[in-house]
Amino acid sequence: MPTDHNDLPTSADVFTAAQNISGRIHRTPLISSGQINRLSGADLWFKCEQLQKVGAFKARGASNALALLPPATQMVATHSSGNHGAALAWAAAERGLACTVVMPETAPLAKRAAVAGYGAEIVICGPSQADRESALQKLVEQTGAHIVPPFDDRRIIAGQGTVALEIVQQCREQGFTPDILVAPVGGGGLLAGIGLAVAALAPDIIVMGAEPAGADDAQRSLRGGTHVTTQKPDTIADGLRTTLGRRNYAVIRRTVRDVVTVTEHGIVEAMRLLWTRTKQLVEPSAAVGLAAVLEHGARFRNKNVAIVLTGGNMDLHRVADLFNDREESP
Amino acid sequence: MPTDHNDLPTSADVFTAAQNISGRIHRTPLISSGQINRLSGADLWFKCEQLQKVGAFKARGASNALALLPPATQMVATHSSGNHGAALAWAAAERGLACTVVMPETAPLAKRAAVAGYGAEIVICGPSQADRESALQKLVEQTGAHIVPPFDDRRIIAGQGTVALEIVQQCREQGFTPDILVAPVGGGGLLAGIGLAVAALAPDIIVMGAEPAGADDAQRSLRGGTHVTTQKPDTIADGLRTTLGRRNYAVIRRTVRDVVTVTEHGIVEAMRLLWTRTKQLVEPSAAVGLAAVLEHGARFRNKNVAIVLTGGNMDLHRVADLFNDREESP
Repeated sequence: MPTDHNDLPTSADVFTAAQNISGRIHRTPLISSGQINRLSGADLWFKCEQLQKVGAFKARGASNALALLPPATQMVATHSSGNHGAALAWAAAERGLACTVVMPETAPLAKRAAVAGYGAEIVICGPSQADRESALQKLVEQTGAHIVPPFDDRRIIAGQGTVALEIVQQCREQGFTPDILVAPVGGGGLLAGIGLAVAALAPDIIVMGAEPAGADDAQRSLRGGTHVTTQKPDTIADGLRTTLGRRNYAVIRRTVRDVVTVTEHGIVEAMRLLWTRTKQLVEPSAAVGLAAVLEHGARFRNKNVAIVLTGGNMDLHRVADLFNDREESP
Repeated sequence: MPTDHNDLPTSADVFTAAQNISGRIHRTPLISSGQINRLSGADLWFKCEQLQKVGAFKARGASNALALLPPATQMVATHSSGNHGAALAWAAAERGLACTVVMPETAPLAKRAAVAGYGAEIVICGPSQADRESALQKLVEQTGAHIVPPFDDRRIIAGQGTVALEIVQQCREQGFTPDILVAPVGGGGLLAGIGLAVAALAPDIIVMGAEPAGADDAQRSLRGGTHVTTQKPDTIADGLRTTLGRRNYAVIRRTVRDVVTVTEHGIVEAMRLLWTRTKQLVEPSAAVGLAAVLEHGARFRNKNVAIVLTGGNMDLHRVADLFNDREESP
């Protein structure tokens, strides 16, 4: 096993990742909605990673990790509640590698179906982080698979950060630089990668994380100055239930201004707005950035704010239930 | 009242309409999905009118009609189950005109909310076509409003046809001409307009209509050679419950090859595919084109098929119910 992936990622890793994955992933659109802008009192730009390969930004990190595998690797494995697993399965299939994904029994069916659809094997485990890690460890002992972790990994963080390079480019093409860039934070791969990219490319942009109040370890870590590594997550945002990784925390504390929390109600309302106004089917986790802008309006008023819509994979019937009896009135 | 809007629209009217509405409406994207192509055995290109102004192609016709109003018109009115009403309300607000929309009590709440949101007045009526027409007539007698009909109108048909001009241009930009162009048909404004556009611009393209089996008046009209003007619609595709207009039938019988019908199950499955694979929130009526390709596979196999996704406005809780207990398995 190489040791150079165990230290912290750098901004240069993000630029290298952009080259590694160029042509393999989509340059997703950056869209806006006049109606949502009027509601929020800010100019919001949504980066559409629900339109990315596998329907989530995770394709970026997975693709970069497989570009940087130890020589002669034939099989990769990971644990994931969904999008990272699908992304690794997709990236492995692209390169002709075998792939196994350890998934908690609570993972959405649609995400299991996606992993299976890309030809990966699935091992079901209990819902906790410890359950996942022990199942993965056992698998590696049995098969010798190379682990590609979902977020606490230099290659993954660098790959996810490429989304910020595109956002800055796309905003500049439209003649401005965003004042603030907001991204949801779960394990912190995306947020750490964005922090590194922005620090090098456009250090005037304020990078902010957003997370459910029911999974607020990142805020507690950042504001308290100590890495919080346990929590009992309680949120519909299934992609944000994990705690910050070690590398992720180390990068985020240096590059991210703050993490704000949002309510479950705010997540549903933001998701409803995105569905009805932009016609984009984003998953609950992906609505957390907009929820942050709406619930912390004063911090964003009259700013140009770029928000990452992280993915669009979900069980429709579960999410649909959220909208029952809550339809807007005429 | 001018009389020149009472005769049949021509292909030239469509080209003029494109000029009339240029800059007021979006040139919506044309997208594809590798997964849906593999499922269908055809190369499908989806024209994204759910991303049009007001979330539906109806913005085209309404905008064109208001560009061609009789001089000194100050108020417009119409009847509509939803998208035409919202489109007229939007177009009227853009031009500083008053607008009233007669809506059946069965219209989706989201569509009522949209009409109200653009500042138009709403008059609620019974669910039948006769209910709508008598309520509208009464309104005109009281107010002198100029009626912009939802589909049986030269200006509306011409405006809707502009979507086909864009489709042909966008396909040519990608280096091909579609073999078949499929559009849902309710009152027939869209399908007639497309027929006129294609007849002039690319007559080798086969134009086909698609409608629910539970609202199959267009197929019966076209195949039987007699205009069917009554039916008892039974379909979730609320935009397609109306019968073909007189002008619409006259144009469609000359320019459209055939109309195929689809099942309710097929509509839901097509909608699920579009939601999950393209992450585009299309309404049931908008899924009817893809449902036609999936249920009549042999007619489309290995062809380049352009399909109009007509809109994305719906009551989320109603549509969500369709997906209950029907989730794909892992």
